[in-house]
Amino acid sequence: MSDDNSNEMSLFEAMYSCRAMRRLDTREVAEELLVKLVDAANQAPSGSNMQNARWIVVRDAEVKKKLADLNRIGVEAYIGPMVDNPGELPHQPVDKRRRMMHAVLWQMEHLHELPALIIACMEFGQKVDGAMAAAGSGSIWPGIQNLLLAARALGLGAAPTTLALGNPKAVAEALNLPDTMAAYCLIPVGYPLGKFGPVTRKPVSEIMRFDGWSD
Amino acid sequence: MSDDNSNEMSLFEAMYSCRAMRRLDTREVAEELLVKLVDAANQAPSGSNMQNARWIVVRDAEVKKKLADLNRIGVEAYIGPMVDNPGELPHQPVDKRRRMMHAVLWQMEHLHELPALIIACMEFGQKVDGAMAAAGSGSIWPGIQNLLLAARALGLGAAPTTLALGNPKAVAEALNLPDTMAAYCLIPVGYPLGKFGPVTRKPVSEIMRFDGWSD
Repeated sequence: MSDDNSNEMSLFEAMYSCRAMRRLDTREVAEELLVKLVDAANQAPSGSNMQNARWIVVRDAEVKKKLADLNRIGVEAYIGPMVDNPGELPHQPVDKRRRMMHAVLWQMEHLHELPALIIACMEFGQKVDGAMAAAGSGSIWPGIQNLLLAARALGLGAAPTTLALGNPKAVAEALNLPDTMAAYCLIPVGYPLGKFGPVTRKPVSEIMRFDGWSD
Repeated sequence: MSDDNSNEMSLFEAMYSCRAMRRLDTREVAEELLVKLVDAANQAPSGSNMQNARWIVVRDAEVKKKLADLNRIGVEAYIGPMVDNPGELPHQPVDKRRRMMHAVLWQMEHLHELPALIIACMEFGQKVDGAMAAAGSGSIWPGIQNLLLAARALGLGAAPTTLALGNPKAVAEALNLPDTMAAYCLIPVGYPLGKFGPVTRKPVSEIMRFDGWSD
């Protein structure tokens, strides 16, 4: 697979090499590319074609600092206790899982320095409640995936996280969200320090069945 | 834009022409292509890399019939009252919205005849409750979007719907789901009767802001 950042990367190449890239350079990303990412996200489908996804691209140092502080609280609560004892999954041995956690911690330490933090939100046209926010997921995550794939095709690193968003009131304050909007995901974007490469997934035979589930 | 179904369609072409295709031919889709769709879905990210998305491809006539019956109940409840009076959205005039609803009704009438109905599920490893199911959304919808994009690149029509899944117990029975699994989305797949073309979306200036939300 090539590492070129042409717009013409094939869909399948982008999907099969769209790793979570957490270690990013501080080098600026051109505004044109950030708009291109969001425009790609905006092409995704939404429930009843409501098109109510909204995207905030944070470059301001002060706002990034606030989000980095919120992220630290979420990461320390969630990942902290596991770092030295990450456990393992049938599909991810302990050393690989530990590397992933160290990347999450790296991201935590550097989040305020990264060039752009993109926040995926939804606008509900009325005061958001929990049920509404939950029902909105299917209209925001397809756009997030488009954004991640577009970043890959443009040679930009990105990785979705929800750990910064555990305190909706503080998030709304940091991003000036009206009470009709909810934030779903934070995606730091920048040029990767590491290399792109194939993603590793369970074989399709484990996760696919015909006509009904069977073990 | 070309209508070729090469694997080499560029990512951006796929994203910008990935219309919801509801009117599909009854012509069979090769198993190899169905596996390719699910394998593409399987490359998407999941929370904490749990890789707990599962995919059921329904081709059996009896199971399709059960899902079509469940879908009819959901569609009639949701869309029925709006068909002759669909209203309009700032970004979708009444005639276009009516066309969309007629396509949903066409799909309802023909669902049992379509070649494959793909059900996107999650496996939780313990009995699913509502909070768990809601939290799982972010780990299934990115894969659904990969599947839709892969279908587009392969010349297959598809469109995600949740209207068939309103009765989890009946869905679990139809698909033999254990109580540790939940279904999120049904995606009928087949060769399209209509033509692919560009999607229509709000301009990016309406849905994107820098540093914080502002009207």
